[in-house]
Amino acid sequence: MDPIVEALRAIVGDNGVLCATDLASRSAGAFRADHLRARALVRPTSTGEVAAVLRWCHQRQLPVVPQGGLTGLVRGADAGPGEIILSLERMRAIEAIDAQQRTATVQAGVTLQALQEAVEAQGLVYPLDLGARGSATLGGTAATNAGGTRVLRYGMTRDMVLGLEAVLADGTVVSSLHPLIKNNTGYDLKQLFIGSEGTLGVITRLVLRLREKPLASHTALLAAPGFDAVAGLLRHMDRALGGSLSSFEVMWQSFYRLVTTPPARSLPPLGQEHPFYVLVEAQGSQREADGQRFEAALEAALEQGLLSDAVLARSDADAQAFWALRDDVEQVMRHGMPLGFDISLPIAEMDGYVRQVQRLLLAEAKAHWLYVFGHLGDGNLHLVVTLPHADLERFKPRIEALVYAELRARGGSVSAEHGIGLEKKPWLSITRSPQERALMGAIKRALDPAGILNPGKLLDGGAP
Amino acid sequence: MDPIVEALRAIVGDNGVLCATDLASRSAGAFRADHLRARALVRPTSTGEVAAVLRWCHQRQLPVVPQGGLTGLVRGADAGPGEIILSLERMRAIEAIDAQQRTATVQAGVTLQALQEAVEAQGLVYPLDLGARGSATLGGTAATNAGGTRVLRYGMTRDMVLGLEAVLADGTVVSSLHPLIKNNTGYDLKQLFIGSEGTLGVITRLVLRLREKPLASHTALLAAPGFDAVAGLLRHMDRALGGSLSSFEVMWQSFYRLVTTPPARSLPPLGQEHPFYVLVEAQGSQREADGQRFEAALEAALEQGLLSDAVLARSDADAQAFWALRDDVEQVMRHGMPLGFDISLPIAEMDGYVRQVQRLLLAEAKAHWLYVFGHLGDGNLHLVVTLPHADLERFKPRIEALVYAELRARGGSVSAEHGIGLEKKPWLSITRSPQERALMGAIKRALDPAGILNPGKLLDGGAP
Repeated sequence: MDPIVEALRAIVGDNGVLCATDLASRSAGAFRADHLRARALVRPTSTGEVAAVLRWCHQRQLPVVPQGGLTGLVRGADAGPGEIILSLERMRAIEAIDAQQRTATVQAGVTLQALQEAVEAQGLVYPLDLGARGSATLGGTAATNAGGTRVLRYGMTRDMVLGLEAVLADGTVVSSLHPLIKNNTGYDLKQLFIGSEGTLGVITRLVLRLREKPLASHTALLAAPGFDAVAGLLRHMDRALGGSLSSFEVMWQSFYRLVTTPPARSLPPLGQEHPFYVLVEAQGSQREADGQRFEAALEAALEQGLLSDAVLARSDADAQAFWALRDDVEQVMRHGMPLGFDISLPIAEMDGYVRQVQRLLLAEAKAHWLYVFGHLGDGNLHLVVTLPHADLERFKPRIEALVYAELRARGGSVSAEHGIGLEKKPWLSITRSPQERALMGAIKRALDPAGILNPGKLLDGGAP
Repeated sequence: MDPIVEALRAIVGDNGVLCATDLASRSAGAFRADHLRARALVRPTSTGEVAAVLRWCHQRQLPVVPQGGLTGLVRGADAGPGEIILSLERMRAIEAIDAQQRTATVQAGVTLQALQEAVEAQGLVYPLDLGARGSATLGGTAATNAGGTRVLRYGMTRDMVLGLEAVLADGTVVSSLHPLIKNNTGYDLKQLFIGSEGTLGVITRLVLRLREKPLASHTALLAAPGFDAVAGLLRHMDRALGGSLSSFEVMWQSFYRLVTTPPARSLPPLGQEHPFYVLVEAQGSQREADGQRFEAALEAALEQGLLSDAVLARSDADAQAFWALRDDVEQVMRHGMPLGFDISLPIAEMDGYVRQVQRLLLAEAKAHWLYVFGHLGDGNLHLVVTLPHADLERFKPRIEALVYAELRARGGSVSAEHGIGLEKKPWLSITRSPQERALMGAIKRALDPAGILNPGKLLDGGAP
């Protein structure tokens, strides 16, 4: 028996620790073919156990990799054979839902979907939403500051966390579990842990802000004659809908054609000849009055030349069909292996950026396809380049370089919502200056001087 | 000539430095009778000059107090005779307003009102608003994470800052001036400087998020039969107005009577017999349709017993008159010297808290008055205790102790939006645990190891 496994079992019980050989049956995560590797996987059931495990590892300078639902896309929770995985999977309690305060207090291992379902019964919503909702944990979405489809209205996870409890590398429990929207009492410590990908502490519990459940929703699929019209449409709809605009998703023509051409399941609700398509959604309170306002806004947009065609969802099924189009990203597999990118940049730069990437891709390797779609309201685009399987290894570095390098001059970001992990670490310097990276390092050293927490993710370095 | 003044003049020019004797004509700030004191007041005109001044002071371990518009209420920018004041008053450029991206790039010394007026012309708003808008600077509102009257809809200053440039204690410029809503590329460094009251760095420039200017506004003054009805009304209105609720301000009866009884300027728009009054505001896009929705929501609230009387603003002048009531805080001076408090707590605790504070005040000193009002939608109450001038010094510590001590068991905060400064430092431990304060100290030491920035504010310690 591995003495480390034995020692950890003394802290969290026999069921609480899996040894290296137990891990062969556990997937390394979403869209991954490999399995987990680690010296041991520890599954504490309480903040106290998390603290005891970390204290023990800290004394021995053993590296610890915190894991949530393993739905991240940047290898932010990868562990090596010498590392200890700290999984929050046995901390799944929804501790309280306070309908008056509109807050939920949860353990970090609760899945996004479990919370969404629990609060709906009280006429409330937790407005974070993303495809991996069934597996993604609330601790993981906080550690990575997850975004999703309604950032435009409700913000990122950062904007939904009111209180947070984290355990530092040395086992110190820092509990800031306030349910308060306003609390200007010194440094807002929770911000350190949100989005820092488990490198500064392990999030164990959260107080999350809930919102009133929208009583009515209106959705339309629009076609726009050009990028300037798309940008104008965003401002027009935001102004005309008076606070109820909840999604503004854009599809470039090549993506729209892909997801509306067999073998894709959907027929095209609008002709395929337009350069841009927009999925727009408003969430309000009155089906009829909101519907009139929504249609009036679209009519005004048509008159102003901001859109060239539109189809309104007349039922929930229609709306779901429009969203299914937008979400049918797996169609990109049709023409080869996909390389996906999650970037953000100023709206004024988007059209030029996409055209330039297209030009460079053509020059680099003529056979490659580029699909673009994204949350335009948040400045966030997803690019997918597909290429023949045989080309993948050869072209991947070149394609990454050209996609990311173009962002530097345009003030863009190499990660809008997915984070950095191991995957994007080589490109961090495009978005963050040496001074910013040095300051990140100073924070890391202040909170985790031995470098045991998720070493090598986001920043270089780790346990000595 | 003071050699320090001379050396600083070599960096920022003769006009850039005021010496100790020049300061006798400068007020120490809003609601203050004293004047500024310092070894020197430096007024750089650029980030480069701020960096040079800090580098110079850092080498000599001279303490530096950053100052904005001096409208803070917690003595967060007080300087002593041996300290250097660093004023941002000559950094007043609005560098860019990007209507498509909906961002403004500003120097830190720009006043809130100057930005508000500049963006209105483009059909946009910067939604932060507070009484001191004419003097408060954008750097100061960021350094203190200012709140104001529309936090319910738009959040605190923290939620409006997209990018930020700060100069560290040693003169290092950390520039994160991104205009992006989504940018998950490592630690979100701007969060360190927002709300840290100038103790971690000097904010020099900001990229702020702008919003579409609301096209229609509806306001009503409501009377509620009890606190539960007020709490129910908040949820009801938020749900019924579908994202357009922008203010939900509550006045306890004693405050309402005060501001509607001569010599107060206002007559009571609603009878004075109700226990609670609510000023509710919605900002939407269509005068007529929004107005119908607003009235329907109020009618439904009346039917559900959530309100006992209501008067709608039929004009902008009506709305301004309702707001004037809420803002006529100076009436509290009528019965003596005011002691003001800015606290937050869970809504479920508010009624019991106010009753308990009333009881304790009566027991402590029968002659004192208590007025309560605040941003209920944000959990933020303002309490004002007035007492005879002769009693002020004697009773102040006792009254502070009873107001703050009651918050501990109720999960409240000793500062909702005003911050800590020197004024609330003795009470910080009510809201923040030893672990939280230790972590704040670790951050302070990591960013400002010599302790030269705004020493003694927020946390103990400073320049050795």
